[in-house]
Amino acid sequence: MGDCTHMNKHHHLLLRGASSLTVSLCKRSGPTHLPPARPLFPSSGAGGTTTAAAIVSNFFSRHHHSILTSPHHHLPKTARMSTTTPSPVDLIEQSKRLAAFQSVTAHLVPFPSRTRIGIGSGSTVIYVVEAITTLVPPTTLSTMTFYPTGAQSEQLIESAGLNLQYINKLPPGTLLDVCFDGADEVDPSLNLIKGGGACLWQEKIVATSSKKFVCVADFRKMSPALGTMWKKGIPIEVLPLAANRVLGELERMGSLGPKVRPGLPGKAGAVVTDNGMWIVDAPFRPLRVEGTSDKEKGEWQVDELADALIKIPGVAEIGLFYGKNGNQAGEGGAQKPVEAYFGMEDGSVKVLSA
Amino acid sequence: MGDCTHMNKHHHLLLRGASSLTVSLCKRSGPTHLPPARPLFPSSGAGGTTTAAAIVSNFFSRHHHSILTSPHHHLPKTARMSTTTPSPVDLIEQSKRLAAFQSVTAHLVPFPSRTRIGIGSGSTVIYVVEAITTLVPPTTLSTMTFYPTGAQSEQLIESAGLNLQYINKLPPGTLLDVCFDGADEVDPSLNLIKGGGACLWQEKIVATSSKKFVCVADFRKMSPALGTMWKKGIPIEVLPLAANRVLGELERMGSLGPKVRPGLPGKAGAVVTDNGMWIVDAPFRPLRVEGTSDKEKGEWQVDELADALIKIPGVAEIGLFYGKNGNQAGEGGAQKPVEAYFGMEDGSVKVLSA
Amino acid sequence: MGDCTHMNKHHHLLLRGASSLTVSLCKRSGPTHLPPARPLFPSSGAGGTTTAAAIVSNFFSRHHHSILTSPHHHLPKTARMSTTTPSPVDLIEQSKRLAAFQSVTAHLVPFPSRTRIGIGSGSTVIYVVEAITTLVPPTTLSTMTFYPTGAQSEQLIESAGLNLQYINKLPPGTLLDVCFDGADEVDPSLNLIKGGGACLWQEKIVATSSKKFVCVADFRKMSPALGTMWKKGIPIEVLPLAANRVLGELERMGSLGPKVRPGLPGKAGAVVTDNGMWIVDAPFRPLRVEGTSDKEKGEWQVDELADALIKIPGVAEIGLFYGKNGNQAGEGGAQKPVEAYFGMEDGSVKVLSA
Amino acid sequence: MGDCTHMNKHHHLLLRGASSLTVSLCKRSGPTHLPPARPLFPSSGAGGTTTAAAIVSNFFSRHHHSILTSPHHHLPKTARMSTTTPSPVDLIEQSKRLAAFQSVTAHLVPFPSRTRIGIGSGSTVIYVVEAITTLVPPTTLSTMTFYPTGAQSEQLIESAGLNLQYINKLPPGTLLDVCFDGADEVDPSLNLIKGGGACLWQEKIVATSSKKFVCVADFRKMSPALGTMWKKGIPIEVLPLAANRVLGELERMGSLGPKVRPGLPGKAGAVVTDNGMWIVDAPFRPLRVEGTSDKEKGEWQVDELADALIKIPGVAEIGLFYGKNGNQAGEGGAQKPVEAYFGMEDGSVKVLSA
Repeated sequence: MGDCTHMNKHHHLLLRGASSLTVSLCKRSGPTHLPPARPLFPSSGAGGTTTAAAIVSNFFSRHHHSILTSPHHHLPKTARMSTTTPSPVDLIEQSKRLAAFQSVTAHLVPFPSRTRIGIGSGSTVIYVVEAITTLVPPTTLSTMTFYPTGAQSEQLIESAGLNLQYINKLPPGTLLDVCFDGADEVDPSLNLIKGGGACLWQEKIVATSSKKFVCVADFRKMSPALGTMWKKGIPIEVLPLAANRVLGELERMGSLGPKVRPGLPGKAGAVVTDNGMWIVDAPFRPLRVEGTSDKEKGEWQVDELADALIKIPGVAEIGLFYGKNGNQAGEGGAQKPVEAYFGMEDGSVKVLSA
Repeated sequence: MGDCTHMNKHHHLLLRGASSLTVSLCKRSGPTHLPPARPLFPSSGAGGTTTAAAIVSNFFSRHHHSILTSPHHHLPKTARMSTTTPSPVDLIEQSKRLAAFQSVTAHLVPFPSRTRIGIGSGSTVIYVVEAITTLVPPTTLSTMTFYPTGAQSEQLIESAGLNLQYINKLPPGTLLDVCFDGADEVDPSLNLIKGGGACLWQEKIVATSSKKFVCVADFRKMSPALGTMWKKGIPIEVLPLAANRVLGELERMGSLGPKVRPGLPGKAGAVVTDNGMWIVDAPFRPLRVEGTSDKEKGEWQVDELADALIKIPGVAEIGLFYGKNGNQAGEGGAQKPVEAYFGMEDGSVKVLSA
Repeated sequence: MGDCTHMNKHHHLLLRGASSLTVSLCKRSGPTHLPPARPLFPSSGAGGTTTAAAIVSNFFSRHHHSILTSPHHHLPKTARMSTTTPSPVDLIEQSKRLAAFQSVTAHLVPFPSRTRIGIGSGSTVIYVVEAITTLVPPTTLSTMTFYPTGAQSEQLIESAGLNLQYINKLPPGTLLDVCFDGADEVDPSLNLIKGGGACLWQEKIVATSSKKFVCVADFRKMSPALGTMWKKGIPIEVLPLAANRVLGELERMGSLGPKVRPGLPGKAGAVVTDNGMWIVDAPFRPLRVEGTSDKEKGEWQVDELADALIKIPGVAEIGLFYGKNGNQAGEGGAQKPVEAYFGMEDGSVKVLSA
Repeated sequence: MGDCTHMNKHHHLLLRGASSLTVSLCKRSGPTHLPPARPLFPSSGAGGTTTAAAIVSNFFSRHHHSILTSPHHHLPKTARMSTTTPSPVDLIEQSKRLAAFQSVTAHLVPFPSRTRIGIGSGSTVIYVVEAITTLVPPTTLSTMTFYPTGAQSEQLIESAGLNLQYINKLPPGTLLDVCFDGADEVDPSLNLIKGGGACLWQEKIVATSSKKFVCVADFRKMSPALGTMWKKGIPIEVLPLAANRVLGELERMGSLGPKVRPGLPGKAGAVVTDNGMWIVDAPFRPLRVEGTSDKEKGEWQVDELADALIKIPGVAEIGLFYGKNGNQAGEGGAQKPVEAYFGMEDGSVKVLSA
């Protein structure tokens, strides 16, 4: 997908790329050593019923140097493995798993020692950890260090027996080599909405502490414009005593019914983040990537809106990941991924590259 | 209601007061000024599928003497208001509302000026606020101050236009006159489980800052022994870095599968309380009020268990309200209510007195 | 201040402006009802050894036009009151008090009812509260509400018997009428450094929730360029787990030895703010108000640096108050004061206007 | 200590116990590889103006039996090392260092692999870390894991290049093998006051997660009764909104002027702990170890007071370490040390054993 420079706004060409990726799944479906897919955490997304017994038998053979079109791949063997036709859920889980393996192959091979890797959350990231533990030679794996973006990914790292370290221990002046994390919505320019799990602050810190950030997700997160698919609003982490004021500002900026996120059923009142803040979910009209915005009508470009939101006093961090990506930002600080991998509904994988 | 000034300690006259309260309620419930019952907040707590009859039967078999049955509290006039037979849900709501009005009548009449009142949370407390705003003369009401136990009750107080104050502003050496709060489970000795909404720490502080604490709830919270009806476990507020150790201690003490409460769907990872802590829900076998405990088998008396739990390093506060009530403790500090009012399934009200 | 000719009859001695205020003050300083100047809290901030003359000289040389000199404000009558020559400390305290009275007279007269007033912290703000309680008629005062910026000002408001309210209770869409707060350093363009007391986040929220913000301070806070007088660095409130990363970013931006603020003697490790964050103090070379910056050399303009700092992931808020003031920003959100009042070393008051 | 005959060859000079340790120490203190004593952190706690002789005299008169005097531990060779008479400060530092080496020798020899060690804070603990890194063979050291009690000890562990782990990662059902920590005051029964650095909650969790807790300190911490030497009061960690109520309770219990600990100079208002709580310092009359207390007069036994304090709603944890020690409590949970080592004013070491 290095040739994804010809993707148009309607994602017309993306579809073709995806169908060719489908093939790659098939070879991988042979019987191997890969443990069964088992989500460690309750996922807000799709369940984990996939067999996906072994996706990776010929994984390396199908990965030449980056994301690519693999025109001879079709999924017959997966179908053959079970006596029945795979359910849609199975297909999605297989595609998410494949997306995870592809992203790891593309961004970790040849598995240099002492790599520092950020691990985010989300149902697809679970397969990223599986891919890493499966593909990286054990002696190399033991030299790698993994940095979580929150409690879920911390448990994921520990359950996999990987070396855990916290982002506040990253020596000043150094960066993670790569960070894999999910997203709640991804637009064609790789702007993201994140924060559905209320971990956006830590997620942004880990992402911007990385040389490059790779997004892994499923097809439901692909969007022509932020706010199209994820309708709950942009998650904004705010100081509780400023919540009212921030709500007022957001309404002035055209947000349609911003609200403090409630904590039920586990907690009465507001969700409290791991940082002691609240989350405001601020719906906006779909955000423009380019072209003139009409703020009077509440129509914003991503970057303009993000710049305005982050400056509101009382806002600690915002769930918009925007601006530069790791290819553009020299010394870290990039919020946008360099690539996004999507498990598709039909079992294939789409890759969106910067 | 104006003649309720001669109520004695044994609540002898409460029955009469209550019946006239019923009338009063019905009048108010007519096509006049009383707003319709409308919970401002979604209610946490046990679902409504329990059979009340079984509970009450069991409950009364263990606690005959102090229940004040109110056989003529069946809200006939309210029932008359509608042209159809009231649904079970309507009956329960009516009884909860009646319970709230009774509790206010019993503990606030003759509505002295400058009363300081704690307001808790729960679906029945909403009716307590309604009762206060309905029954207290406006000029007196404006001299009263209301102390919330958390965000929900704070909003309740403000929505009702009452004078809000925080418990940390209570002058040293003074006490609230009365506190009305709900519970997740109530045993015949008026021991409570609270904390389903993760607000137990603030709730205990407000309750123990009161001369007397009055519990209002519905029939589902009545229980022969704590742990019978509320099966999720005793909510325990813990320092996050001690959660593992506390879980280990709890298991040693016989808790059956204690767990850190998850924050989903609003938050990945653990629920964080308003105090920055986590909640561990620790199920125990039904707690004995009296008789010998068998700790080896994980069978505990309420007081023994509470004393042991509160001393575990890492435990900030526990959701057991136990020990003395306001009649027994001279200068505040009592955790148990002096009375509990339950709205029953059949529209009546049960009162359990210390 | 000579144009304050519209003051009302209740304070006719103040009608003639600051010079008559001096008289009024002196009378109050006599054996009457005015309590002696007594800071309620220990004051943090720069010590008092700086030579005022040098500062002011430098200050004025860069900012001629908007200083209102008050040559006849030398508190002669106060001096007369005592039989001995006033000490330098007395003179400074008198001038700070005078500055506070002037600021209140200029921005609160004619004392409209129901005014909402933000009250900050600092040794001069104590006199602002004194001025308000002294000058505002009691019946009007009882209709006013006061919003603190932190624990110190909260106590100040309560000690004075004023109506306390929290900024999170300000109804959405409304603003405070005025906010009085101190500063750690003020440049000729009214950019500020605040945060010496670690309360900058709440202070900025209150200031930007006000129609206008008025700064009151003493001569030591006047500066030709931020970073000249306040050498400890710009206070930056950061998420603890991002502290290392923020330190690295700051060094890349030219900060000279940024450090996490230690909590000793009261607390080992870092200062924790009321918001659960840490404070990084980031010294920079004196910040330019205008002219070209040379970021390579760590030379920044105020606005450029502030815009860069606020965007660093992990930064919750910064102690630079910059951008627009209340005259320029229509609907709140201004961080810069419209005026700054300084108590001078010689007993006089300097006023710097936007 | 005399039975430490099984130490390994790398440290044969230590084989003969503490007295040979002295020799060993002296050699190390020569112009060899041992780094000079250098506190990494500023030490909080009582000043050094107390006369040690008086303390010790008083101390021993109340506690004859369990003090292990080490008459030949007077560091003669260290003294010989310098050409001048050692200053009192030097002597104290030497004795603290010796105390640390003795405690490590007594409780870590024969340095089993995979030992889990808690590391507290305080100026003497710095020497404990030095002792461990000096005495434990590197290959063994690399298998050990060290658990800090707060930010200071975390930095200490990392600076020494030791394996850091957090107490919340201790697997349920396991314990630290030993914990070394300081104290603000130690009575003859090994009850402690801790919390001068506001880290008491985490310190108590680490101590009670250990099989045995070893206290290391200097002579100023030895006391005939808690409250004699440490006059600032018992540190109590409280929920901020309960601070007023807790202060009231404490006064009722006889505390003489309990106060919320201020955060200056680094922070206006109260110290906020790493857990988001405040610290109340509650002075009591010297606490009795045994004999009848007279609570009416505010005279308490340690255990009675501790039991009462921990139950006050709003109290998260208390700075009294009391009850059982590791020899008495089977499965962890002990708050009292099994031994306390004190560096004395004259260069010697006193050991107090349970």
